[in-house]
Amino acid sequence: MAFVGKKFPNMEVNAMNEMGDTIQVNVFEEAAKNKKKVLLFWYPKDFTFVCPTELHAFQAALGEFDKRNTIVIGASCDTPEVHFAWLSTAKDNGGIEGITYNLLADSNRNLASTLGILDTTVVEKDGLTLLEGDNVTYRATYLIDEDGVVFHEGINHMPIGRNVNEYLRLIDAFTHVQEKGEVCPANWEEGKQA
Amino acid sequence: MAFVGKKFPNMEVNAMNEMGDTIQVNVFEEAAKNKKKVLLFWYPKDFTFVCPTELHAFQAALGEFDKRNTIVIGASCDTPEVHFAWLSTAKDNGGIEGITYNLLADSNRNLASTLGILDTTVVEKDGLTLLEGDNVTYRATYLIDEDGVVFHEGINHMPIGRNVNEYLRLIDAFTHVQEKGEVCPANWEEGKQA
Amino acid sequence: MAFVGKKFPNMEVNAMNEMGDTIQVNVFEEAAKNKKKVLLFWYPKDFTFVCPTELHAFQAALGEFDKRNTIVIGASCDTPEVHFAWLSTAKDNGGIEGITYNLLADSNRNLASTLGILDTTVVEKDGLTLLEGDNVTYRATYLIDEDGVVFHEGINHMPIGRNVNEYLRLIDAFTHVQEKGEVCPANWEEGKQA
Amino acid sequence: MAFVGKKFPNMEVNAMNEMGDTIQVNVFEEAAKNKKKVLLFWYPKDFTFVCPTELHAFQAALGEFDKRNTIVIGASCDTPEVHFAWLSTAKDNGGIEGITYNLLADSNRNLASTLGILDTTVVEKDGLTLLEGDNVTYRATYLIDEDGVVFHEGINHMPIGRNVNEYLRLIDAFTHVQEKGEVCPANWEEGKQA
Amino acid sequence: MAFVGKKFPNMEVNAMNEMGDTIQVNVFEEAAKNKKKVLLFWYPKDFTFVCPTELHAFQAALGEFDKRNTIVIGASCDTPEVHFAWLSTAKDNGGIEGITYNLLADSNRNLASTLGILDTTVVEKDGLTLLEGDNVTYRATYLIDEDGVVFHEGINHMPIGRNVNEYLRLIDAFTHVQEKGEVCPANWEEGKQA
Amino acid sequence: MAFVGKKFPNMEVNAMNEMGDTIQVNVFEEAAKNKKKVLLFWYPKDFTFVCPTELHAFQAALGEFDKRNTIVIGASCDTPEVHFAWLSTAKDNGGIEGITYNLLADSNRNLASTLGILDTTVVEKDGLTLLEGDNVTYRATYLIDEDGVVFHEGINHMPIGRNVNEYLRLIDAFTHVQEKGEVCPANWEEGKQA
Amino acid sequence: MAFVGKKFPNMEVNAMNEMGDTIQVNVFEEAAKNKKKVLLFWYPKDFTFVCPTELHAFQAALGEFDKRNTIVIGASCDTPEVHFAWLSTAKDNGGIEGITYNLLADSNRNLASTLGILDTTVVEKDGLTLLEGDNVTYRATYLIDEDGVVFHEGINHMPIGRNVNEYLRLIDAFTHVQEKGEVCPANWEEGKQA
Amino acid sequence: MAFVGKKFPNMEVNAMNEMGDTIQVNVFEEAAKNKKKVLLFWYPKDFTFVCPTELHAFQAALGEFDKRNTIVIGASCDTPEVHFAWLSTAKDNGGIEGITYNLLADSNRNLASTLGILDTTVVEKDGLTLLEGDNVTYRATYLIDEDGVVFHEGINHMPIGRNVNEYLRLIDAFTHVQEKGEVCPANWEEGKQA
Amino acid sequence: MAFVGKKFPNMEVNAMNEMGDTIQVNVFEEAAKNKKKVLLFWYPKDFTFVCPTELHAFQAALGEFDKRNTIVIGASCDTPEVHFAWLSTAKDNGGIEGITYNLLADSNRNLASTLGILDTTVVEKDGLTLLEGDNVTYRATYLIDEDGVVFHEGINHMPIGRNVNEYLRLIDAFTHVQEKGEVCPANWEEGKQA
Amino acid sequence: MAFVGKKFPNMEVNAMNEMGDTIQVNVFEEAAKNKKKVLLFWYPKDFTFVCPTELHAFQAALGEFDKRNTIVIGASCDTPEVHFAWLSTAKDNGGIEGITYNLLADSNRNLASTLGILDTTVVEKDGLTLLEGDNVTYRATYLIDEDGVVFHEGINHMPIGRNVNEYLRLIDAFTHVQEKGEVCPANWEEGKQA
Repeated sequence: MAFVGKKFPNMEVNAMNEMGDTIQVNVFEEAAKNKKKVLLFWYPKDFTFVCPTELHAFQAALGEFDKRNTIVIGASCDTPEVHFAWLSTAKDNGGIEGITYNLLADSNRNLASTLGILDTTVVEKDGLTLLEGDNVTYRATYLIDEDGVVFHEGINHMPIGRNVNEYLRLIDAFTHVQEKGEVCPANWEEGKQA
Repeated sequence: MAFVGKKFPNMEVNAMNEMGDTIQVNVFEEAAKNKKKVLLFWYPKDFTFVCPTELHAFQAALGEFDKRNTIVIGASCDTPEVHFAWLSTAKDNGGIEGITYNLLADSNRNLASTLGILDTTVVEKDGLTLLEGDNVTYRATYLIDEDGVVFHEGINHMPIGRNVNEYLRLIDAFTHVQEKGEVCPANWEEGKQA
Repeated sequence: MAFVGKKFPNMEVNAMNEMGDTIQVNVFEEAAKNKKKVLLFWYPKDFTFVCPTELHAFQAALGEFDKRNTIVIGASCDTPEVHFAWLSTAKDNGGIEGITYNLLADSNRNLASTLGILDTTVVEKDGLTLLEGDNVTYRATYLIDEDGVVFHEGINHMPIGRNVNEYLRLIDAFTHVQEKGEVCPANWEEGKQA
Repeated sequence: MAFVGKKFPNMEVNAMNEMGDTIQVNVFEEAAKNKKKVLLFWYPKDFTFVCPTELHAFQAALGEFDKRNTIVIGASCDTPEVHFAWLSTAKDNGGIEGITYNLLADSNRNLASTLGILDTTVVEKDGLTLLEGDNVTYRATYLIDEDGVVFHEGINHMPIGRNVNEYLRLIDAFTHVQEKGEVCPANWEEGKQA
Repeated sequence: MAFVGKKFPNMEVNAMNEMGDTIQVNVFEEAAKNKKKVLLFWYPKDFTFVCPTELHAFQAALGEFDKRNTIVIGASCDTPEVHFAWLSTAKDNGGIEGITYNLLADSNRNLASTLGILDTTVVEKDGLTLLEGDNVTYRATYLIDEDGVVFHEGINHMPIGRNVNEYLRLIDAFTHVQEKGEVCPANWEEGKQA
Repeated sequence: MAFVGKKFPNMEVNAMNEMGDTIQVNVFEEAAKNKKKVLLFWYPKDFTFVCPTELHAFQAALGEFDKRNTIVIGASCDTPEVHFAWLSTAKDNGGIEGITYNLLADSNRNLASTLGILDTTVVEKDGLTLLEGDNVTYRATYLIDEDGVVFHEGINHMPIGRNVNEYLRLIDAFTHVQEKGEVCPANWEEGKQA
Repeated sequence: MAFVGKKFPNMEVNAMNEMGDTIQVNVFEEAAKNKKKVLLFWYPKDFTFVCPTELHAFQAALGEFDKRNTIVIGASCDTPEVHFAWLSTAKDNGGIEGITYNLLADSNRNLASTLGILDTTVVEKDGLTLLEGDNVTYRATYLIDEDGVVFHEGINHMPIGRNVNEYLRLIDAFTHVQEKGEVCPANWEEGKQA
Repeated sequence: MAFVGKKFPNMEVNAMNEMGDTIQVNVFEEAAKNKKKVLLFWYPKDFTFVCPTELHAFQAALGEFDKRNTIVIGASCDTPEVHFAWLSTAKDNGGIEGITYNLLADSNRNLASTLGILDTTVVEKDGLTLLEGDNVTYRATYLIDEDGVVFHEGINHMPIGRNVNEYLRLIDAFTHVQEKGEVCPANWEEGKQA
Repeated sequence: MAFVGKKFPNMEVNAMNEMGDTIQVNVFEEAAKNKKKVLLFWYPKDFTFVCPTELHAFQAALGEFDKRNTIVIGASCDTPEVHFAWLSTAKDNGGIEGITYNLLADSNRNLASTLGILDTTVVEKDGLTLLEGDNVTYRATYLIDEDGVVFHEGINHMPIGRNVNEYLRLIDAFTHVQEKGEVCPANWEEGKQA
Repeated sequence: MAFVGKKFPNMEVNAMNEMGDTIQVNVFEEAAKNKKKVLLFWYPKDFTFVCPTELHAFQAALGEFDKRNTIVIGASCDTPEVHFAWLSTAKDNGGIEGITYNLLADSNRNLASTLGILDTTVVEKDGLTLLEGDNVTYRATYLIDEDGVVFHEGINHMPIGRNVNEYLRLIDAFTHVQEKGEVCPANWEEGKQA
C-alpha cells in the first residue's frame, strides 16, 4: 500500500537521542506539530558496514536539511541500548559516533510492520507460524511534509546506499510546488529553470 | 507491500509501441527472458502537463539506459488508442511525438492494482461499492534486474517530476554490486571511489 | 438487471463540457431536477473510428432532441483530459471537434459498473483476481424520463453504430403515452396513426 | 448483466408452434445448430391490446427476416394452452390468428428469470417471501447470431411498441460487419454508404 | 404442511370478477370479514379440457353453496387477461362463459407457493436454479370457515375431477358441528341421523 | 408439501393385525409390491367417539374396496398394545371389535412426521424446545396407486367424519383414467357418462 | 444429565385423574406449591403386563406415602383417552381399575424428552431423521422434595418391576436428614439405629 | 442421558486393588470379558463420614454378590495414593481397612464425566471458564450385565446412604428374567412368587 | 503463558488450615490485601514420598519466610478431607503432621487450570474428549510480591525436590531491588556485595 | 503452557559463536543429537547492565557444566551483528569479551514466541494491531535432558539475576534420578544424603 498522499502513521516509537536518552518519538507529530518536513530513513541493522556510511552522509548534510526546515530521523529495529552502544563506537571502528539526529529503536516492529517494510515472510511449519528472514527492515525512505503527509517514498535493495542529494532535490521540488503552485517537471532542480 | 527483493508480477498488459501497434507486454519477461534491466515508470494520465516532460526526459536519456542494458517502459491506465493519439500529437502541442519506448495501456488496471499504486479509496455509499478518486496511478517507478527482481521502487507525489540521473546512478550502483560483489555506500556514483 | 421502470442511479460522475471544464454530472438529477428527458449513450473508447460517427450523429440531431425537451449526454471511461484532447482534434483527423453536449469521464467506472455494462470478466489466475478485457463499456443507451426513470435501455455489439432516428421515435412514443394516455403499438411513429 | 457478446442461455423452454403442438424450443440451439440468426421478442401477457400489434407486425415482416436468414420467436410466460387459445382467436377479436412463428410458453419462468427481465421485486412480508408485481416479463428483445451469441439486447417500457424496421437495420448492420469486416457507423443502413 | 385447523394465509391476490374487472381478493378476509364460509378450488390451467367441467359444476351448484352461506372462488396461475378471454369463450368452444364467481389470477404464485401446491421441483443445472414442471398448481381444494380457518383441504391428481356434492356434505357436517356441538361420524349426511 | 404425484414414503411402521400380532407394515410396499391400491386413513386417537364410526364404516365397505383391488389400512400414533385393547373392546362399549384390516401404530411418529400431519407446533419456552398440542395426527387420508404413487390426499378437521363413498368414487375415477386413458370430469361416477 | 440436586422441570403435562377428567399437572408445582414430596414413576405403555403390577403396588402403598406427606404420580406417553380406557378395565382383565392417583399422559413427550428417558435413538436414513424404537419411556422413578428438588432418580431395565418399599425407605432417610440434620448411612432404615 | 439398555463406556481407569497396587480397570470388560455382572458404586470423596459405611456395607455383602456372579467395584475421583492411605486407616479411625474389592481412582474424571455424574456447573467469570462445586461425583450406582449392558442406574442425593439389599433384589430380578424369560412384577423378590 | 510481571489470578480456592477447617483462600488477596509476599508451591498428590519432604522443608524454614514478610502456601488437587487425613498422619508414617501453613485443595482444578500447570493432554478417542495423565499438577512454584504480582515462577520435573534456600535468595534479591532500587546481578546473595 | 516433561521446540535459530561466525543452532538437536544436557538462558537485551554479570557468571562456571555433560547457551532477540559488537567490547566497558558459549540471535522471535516468554501484550489501537512493550524476552531458563526433554523451566522478573549454583544443583539432582532411579527430596544436594 502506498503512503504517498496519505498521512504518516500516528504512532509513538522508542528512540535514542544524541544525549543517550531513550525517548519517545512520533514521526507524524514531529512534522505536523513542529510544522517541519521530515526525512525518515530506515536501515536494516546496527553494527553493519553499509549502514554507517549512510548515517554519516545524512549527518554531513544536516545543515542542508536544516536550511530546508527538514528534520532527519534514522531508524532500525535494534534496541535503544544497541543504538547507544553503536553511537559510543568510533567511526573508525565501524561506529556512528558523532551522529546527532534521533534514531528510532523500533524493537517491537510496530511502525515497520505498519509501513510494510519488514523483509520477512510468514510461513507455516509443523503447525507453527514462523517468520522467514531476520525480521529487519528494507532500506526505505519517507519524505513527509509539514502536515504529516508523505510526498515521497522509496525502497532500495539491501546493498545499495542512498543518494542524499536526490532527497534534497525532492524537498526543493516539493517546496517549489508548495510556494509557487507550479508543477516541477522531470529533472527539475532548484535554480535551474523549471 | 514492498516489491523490492521479490519478482515483479508476471502478467501480460496491453501496450502501444512506437509503430502505433497494440501489443502485449509482460514486464517481468522483458527483464528475465531478455536478460535486461528494466526501468518501468508510471504517470497518472495522458494529455496532462507534467507527464510529457518526464516522458521526454526518459526519451532523451535512452542512450544512457541502453548502455546499461536497460529497457525503459512507460505506463498509464489510458487505452492504447489514447496513447496513439498522444504519440501523434506534436511536443509543442503538449504531445509526446518522438517517444520510441513502449507505453503500457493498463486500462483494466490489472497491473496497477497488483502493485497497489492506484490513487483510490473504496467507499460504501447507499449500498453501492464505489471508488473515490480518478482511479489512476501514482507517479511510481520500478527498477528491475535481469532476473525480474525489483531492486528499487519509489513513489513521488503527483506534482513532482522524476530525476532521470538518480535512476542511472541506482542502476550503476546495483550493477557495481552485481559485478564487484561490493556494497555501494551512500552517495556512491560510478567512477567516484566507493 | 433491467433498469427499465426503475430510477437511474443517483450518482455524481466526472465530465467535460464544451468549454473544456471538468465538471460533475449527475444524470439522474439532470432529468429529475430539470424536468427533462435524457438520452445517455455510452461508447467504448475515445480516439476510435466508429465512435466519432455516433458522436457526430447525435450532435447533428441535437435540435431534434432539444425540441423534445431531451438532453443528450455521451459517456466513456476515458479521463476528462483525454476527452479534452479528442474535442480539440478536428473531425477530419478523427476528432470530435464541434461536439457541444457533455461527455461523462467515468474513469473510476463507478457508474458503468453499477449499470453492469463493462465488457469484462473477473478471472482468478495465480491467486490474483484479474479482469479479462479492456474494462471499457458496451455501446449501451438509456432513455430516461422527467422523473429520472428509465423507459428504454439497449446494448449494441461493439461494431454496430446506433440509429439516432430510432431514439427520436422512442421518445415520441413515450411522450405520446405520457400526454395521451394511449399505448403506442408496434412501429408507431409520431404523425402516423397509432 | 449484459448478454451482448455472450452466448444466449442454453435452455429448453415449452413453446407452441403454428400447428397447435406443444414443443420444446432451445433458442440457443435454434441459432447455433441451424446456423441462423434469431430475433427473440418478449411481451408481457397474452390477450392484451399492445401485444398483438407487435406480434402481427413481426408476422408481416417475416419475409424480410427470412431473407436475412433470421428466425423470429415470440415469448411470454403464459401456458401453451393459453397461446393456443389466443392463436385460435381472430385478429378482429384481439386474437393473433395467423401468427406462424413459434411462441415460447415460459410458464415456469426459467428463461425469463435467467435473462433478468421479470418485472418483479422480491419482498419480505409477515415472514413470507413474496413477489411484488405480476411476475411477467418486460418488452425485451434479443438479436442472436449464427453462433448463438447475442449482438443486440433492448428493453422498452411496457406501453411502447417495438419498431420492426430497426431490428432489420441492426441485422443488416451486423451482417455487413460479418461479411465485409467493416464497422457500421451511426445511422448506417443497408444500401446507404457506410 | 397442513393448513387444517390454521388460518388461511392473509394475502391479496389478483382476480377477475364476472364483470371483467381485475380486482384484488383476500380469501382469508372474504371469509373472516364477511362471516362466510369459502370454498376455494384450484385448477392447473385455463383453456384445458377437465378444468371447465369443474368450473361449470361449481357454477351449477352455486345456489346450494349460497344457501350454506358459502362463497365459491376458483383459482389458477393464469393472468386476469387470460381469465377474461376464457370467460368470453362460449362453453361449447371449451370456454367458461357464464361463470359468475371470482377467479384468482395468481400469476406471481404468491398464494400457491405459500400453500405448497405448485407441481414443480427445484433443480440445479449448469449452475442455474431451475424449476422442473410447468409451475402450475395441483387440483387442490380448501374449505374455510367464518373465522378464516381451514376445515378441509384435499388434492386430487391432475386427471380426476372433483365431486361437488362431497364439498356440500363437508360443509353441512361442519355446520352441524358448529351449531349442534355434535361430532359428525363417518358417512354423515344432513338429514340422515348422525 | 403435497404428496400427490409423488411416491408415498418408503418406511416400515409398527402395526397390529386382526390376529393381535404386532407386525411391520410398509405402506409403499403394500401397494408397489402387491400391485394393489391402498387407502390409508389416519385418525387422532384410539378410544374416542368419532373415530370408531369411521373405522366401522371402512370395515363395512371392505368388500367394495376389495373389488377395486384396494387394501384399507387405518393408522394412529397409539401403541400396538393400545390398538389390541381397543380391538378387544366390543363395539357397544365404544370399541372396534370386528375390524379386520391392519392398524398402523406409529408411536414414534416417523411416518406421521414425514407426512406433516401432526397437529403440533414447535415452541421455544424457557430454553426448551416443546411441542404444543397432543402430538397426534389430523384426520388425513391417502389414496395410493399400484406403483405406490399418491393420487389423492385430504385432511378433515378433527370433528368431521369421512365419507367412504367419496373414496370409492375417487378410486373408480382414477381406475377409469388408468384403463381408458380418459380424463374424469367433475362429479364423474362409474356407470354415469364421463 | 443428572437431575439429583436440581429442581424438577417446571412444565404442564396432560393427565387423567380418577374421575376420568383430563387435567393439567405440573409435577414441580405439585411439590413446591403444596409443600409435599412427590414420587413420580414412569412406565413404558398402557395395556401391558408388568406395568399394572407396579401401578397396583403403588396404589396399595398409597396410605404409607400419604403418611410421609408424599404424592404418588404415574406417567406414560399414552393419551388421556387410553388412560381412561385402561382405568375402566377390570384388574382381572389386565386393567388398572381402582387406581386413584393421577396419571400423566405425556403424548407430546415434552417432559419425557426433557428428562432424557425416552428409549429412542435418532437415526438418519435416506435423508430423513427418524426415531429408532417405540418412543416410549424407560421405567424411571423420581423422588422430589417439598422445594421441587430431586433427591433420588433411578431407571430399571424394561422387564424389572420396582420395589415400593425401597422408595419408602429413601423417603424416610431423606426426611430423617431434613429433620435431624443427620446423614443416613448405608442400609439405614427408619427405626433402626442410624 | 440414560445408560440403561446401552453398553457401559469402554474405558480404562486407574484403580487400587486390595494389595495396594495401582492397576487399570475397564469396567465394561470386567463384565463382558469375565461374563460377570458388575455393581459399580460411586461415592463423593475418601475420608468422609457417610461413605465408609457404604463401603463397609458392600464389603459385608460381598459373599452375596459373589453367589450372584457379581463383582463389586467402588469409585471416587481421589488418587490411588489417597485410596491406599484410606485403605491403610483402621475402620475405627474412619478408615476402610478390610475392603477387598477394587476402587476406581478417576482423578482425571474421564469416566465420571462420560457418565455425567459430576456435581459441577460450568460458569463463565471474568473471562475464565470455571467449575462451581468440588468436582466430585454424586452417589451414583450402576448394575451391569454379563454383556456389559446397564440394567439399572440410580443416583441418591449426597447425604443418603444406599440399601445393599435393594441391589441384591434387582440382580435377582434381572437374573430371573434372564433365566426364566419371565418379567418380574413390582416388589418381586427371589423365592416369593412372581 | 508467563505470569511473571503480571498479577496472580484473583480466585477463591478451597483450602485446609492447620485447625482442620475447610476455608476459602484467594492467593492474590493474601498478598495484595495483607501487603505480604507469598510463596505458593504446588505438589502433585497427597500421600506420596517426595512431596512430604518438600512440605516439611518449607515448614522448617517458616521462620525465615516470616522474617521476610512472606506467607507460605502449599497446594495440590486433592480434597480438603484428604489434606486433613494427611495432616493427621504422623511424619514417620509418611504424613505431614505438624504442617501449619494453609494447603489449597483445588479439586475442581480452577486455579491449576488457569495457571496451565496440569500434567494432562486432551485426546480425542472414540468420539470422547478424554484427559491423558492423572490430571494433577507439576511441581510449580510462584513468588508473588505485596501487590499480588508474580516475580518468579518455576517448574521442576516430577522427581526433583525444591531448594528452599534458593527461594529465600530470590525473595532477598527482589526485596533488595524494591528497597535499594538496585538491580541484583547473577549469584547475588544478601550480605554478599551485589 | 508448561514445557517441563515435553520436548523442547525443534527449531533452527541464528546464533553467533565465539569466532564471530553467524551459525544456525537447533537447541533440541544440540541435546538430542549430542546426547548432552543443555542449559539455555534468555536475557532481555545486549548492552545492558544486569545481563553481562549473568553471562560472565555462566562463563565462569563453564567447567562445572562441562563436567556434568551440559552445554550452556545464551539467548536474546538481538541480531548476530549486535552480539558480535558486544562480544568485541571489553568487560570493563560493559561488554562480554571472553564469552565462549554460543549466543542465540532470535531477531525474528520465532523461538521466543513459541516459548511464550516475550514481554509483550497485543493491543488493538486505531484499527492497528500493535505490541505493547519492547518485544524482548523475560529472564527465562530451561534445563533440557539428553533426549531434548525439558526438566526445569523458570522465569525471574527483569531486575533479578540468576543463581548459577542452583542450576548445577538441579542438574545434579536430575542426574541422580537418572542414574540411581531415586527421587531427590527437597533441598537435595550432591554428596549430601538424599
